[in-house]
Amino acid sequence: MPRKVAIVGCGMSKFGRRDDMDLMGLLVEASTASLDDANVGRKDIDAIYVSSMLSGELSHQTATASALADALSLLPAAADRIENGPASGGSAVKNAYAAVASELFDTVLVTGGEKMRHVAGATVTDLLATMTHPTAEYMHGVTLPSLAGMFTRLYMQRYGVELRHLAMIAIKNHKNALKNPYAHIHREITLEGIYSKPEAELNNPLISDPLRLYYSCPITDGAASIVITSAENASKFSDAPVTIAGVGQATDTLAVHQRDDPTVLRAVRISSQRAFAMAKSKPEDIDVAELHDAFEILEIAESEDAGFFEKGTAHKAVEKGVTALDGDLPINPSGGLKARGHPVGATGVAQIVELTSQLRGEAGERQVSGAEQGYSCNFGGFGNNVLAFVLKRGD
Amino acid sequence: MPRKVAIVGCGMSKFGRRDDMDLMGLLVEASTASLDDANVGRKDIDAIYVSSMLSGELSHQTATASALADALSLLPAAADRIENGPASGGSAVKNAYAAVASELFDTVLVTGGEKMRHVAGATVTDLLATMTHPTAEYMHGVTLPSLAGMFTRLYMQRYGVELRHLAMIAIKNHKNALKNPYAHIHREITLEGIYSKPEAELNNPLISDPLRLYYSCPITDGAASIVITSAENASKFSDAPVTIAGVGQATDTLAVHQRDDPTVLRAVRISSQRAFAMAKSKPEDIDVAELHDAFEILEIAESEDAGFFEKGTAHKAVEKGVTALDGDLPINPSGGLKARGHPVGATGVAQIVELTSQLRGEAGERQVSGAEQGYSCNFGGFGNNVLAFVLKRGD
Repeated sequence: MPRKVAIVGCGMSKFGRRDDMDLMGLLVEASTASLDDANVGRKDIDAIYVSSMLSGELSHQTATASALADALSLLPAAADRIENGPASGGSAVKNAYAAVASELFDTVLVTGGEKMRHVAGATVTDLLATMTHPTAEYMHGVTLPSLAGMFTRLYMQRYGVELRHLAMIAIKNHKNALKNPYAHIHREITLEGIYSKPEAELNNPLISDPLRLYYSCPITDGAASIVITSAENASKFSDAPVTIAGVGQATDTLAVHQRDDPTVLRAVRISSQRAFAMAKSKPEDIDVAELHDAFEILEIAESEDAGFFEKGTAHKAVEKGVTALDGDLPINPSGGLKARGHPVGATGVAQIVELTSQLRGEAGERQVSGAEQGYSCNFGGFGNNVLAFVLKRGD
Repeated sequence: MPRKVAIVGCGMSKFGRRDDMDLMGLLVEASTASLDDANVGRKDIDAIYVSSMLSGELSHQTATASALADALSLLPAAADRIENGPASGGSAVKNAYAAVASELFDTVLVTGGEKMRHVAGATVTDLLATMTHPTAEYMHGVTLPSLAGMFTRLYMQRYGVELRHLAMIAIKNHKNALKNPYAHIHREITLEGIYSKPEAELNNPLISDPLRLYYSCPITDGAASIVITSAENASKFSDAPVTIAGVGQATDTLAVHQRDDPTVLRAVRISSQRAFAMAKSKPEDIDVAELHDAFEILEIAESEDAGFFEKGTAHKAVEKGVTALDGDLPINPSGGLKARGHPVGATGVAQIVELTSQLRGEAGERQVSGAEQGYSCNFGGFGNNVLAFVLKRGD
């Protein structure tokens, strides 16, 4: 039997426009926070995983994990960089999990980060599009926002979702982020300001019809980090360990148009089913969820394909406040990608950081009371590679 | 206890200048070969790992593992890309090992590849240098060949190594590669042609004093692939499984000048000690070794720090033919990085492919007779991140 694995430390850099720090600085900031939180010594760390999608392209730095091991004085710890598009963070957590469960290593640092704000937005959009199908999508000018625009249109036609639902999710996530000191955006927004009044269009310009600015996440610099160890070691480092109970991953067609029904996120379904099965848990058991709302329509679609709501009904749950911080299933208490921000390689780790804080009961003003089980969905490509996790309080 | 893990399939693309194929084509070519060799069905593969250092920078493609899963029709298999400089391949094998040992997945495909010949050599040299220390090395113009030049000079002064020893290793590796149909370079070279005659300098131009062309590996396109599974499953797919008995990884200072003694490859020592300890094996037990001779001086240094020869004596073993194909410890029967070639992300996997062929007794003309245990050293950065493996015949 593989060993059980627990999270014993977590930390974040401030997310945002971080002109004060390069990529390595952000990785160090988050890593130091999680190492301090775990109360581990430098010698306790056997291996590190770094997730970063674009460290080579945007920071002209490769083998980034070797550099972080050196910067943190963790030599001779093993070190690997994982690149899996926006799911890089989830993949790093998964591989760190396997490394500990397999007894290859005892205690492992996982840090994800991205530095993206120092170049033009169009450059970022182009580089992110390198995760799409090179000949069937990319060469025709397809980008992630354009895929999301088409996906939103289809979802609206098929299930009766309206743009006001996307606005409501954005408003919820901005509101949650006000309670998260590490979030990128600390600004309350209103339905009047971005949607319901004629002049709202000026505040909320079109990005990719029908997607508008406030229905999409920002470009963010930042890093997030956790420390994991075997469950039997966990009490050495933490009196509130959180167990990685379920890990699921699945791929789907690279080109979105090849899917039988493009509104069905098959990789979300399969990865979630695997994570729940491994955790011996069900969607109904989950108290708090972090979803990958790179575009607000994805929070709706993922919450359905993960099993929390019937297909085509999540927007009604949003209307009723079910996913609000005080609702039955709070989604993205951190502020989500929309307002906490989306430093691409950091996101999958940042979701785990938020769940860990929630399950420890240390999430402050945004605490979901009595949270025992958490779920995260880290969405890569346009749904072509998804990681799902189920975390449980205790070891 | 973690499960034992065995290699049940291996395959390679032809290495060389592959103007006929893009990166994905090379990855598919090698993957198909190893899937066929393992006799696994598409549904048997639970996860894939792709190692590639520069797929984003040189092929404008990221999340490369998701793309390969799609290209091979392996959906919904999990898929991650590992980037760890020239040690990317070893890191991918390590993570695949942990994924199987931890019971997260049963059967996993690992494919490493790089497409590098379609751009100017100076571009490649610059991008490879992004793995060095950004402020202490890279910004001063340090490249991998310049580090290797300085390392060679120091090694010559300290241990009495002469350039003719580097020529002898190059000659040996070219000779071995003549027996490897997948090797990049099929050309016999001689001491007269590259070293001992006055006109030899014309054939063997200076790269980075004292390093010359034939003391360095070429720039190569190519991919290599293995299929691994749990030892208990291995007989389903192969009647000659090879066990991954030892896995070691270690890091060293990012900047080479920060090491107490730059001629000591500390990460090679530590990673090898770990791999041997895990395998309950010793250097004397090894019948065949694949070392990372990106520069020929590294074959000497690694063979010492891995424990095969006393420090400062490997060049004498080279003189005596100990490391030749018919010697006591054949090193790089594949032709090594020098002549099989060095598609950066492929190399660590290609080493494992060669050892697997050798331990199965299927290496044809270059077979090391009676090989029971093999060792590989996959060297990242300039020795700042090293993977060592011990493989054993049988399960």
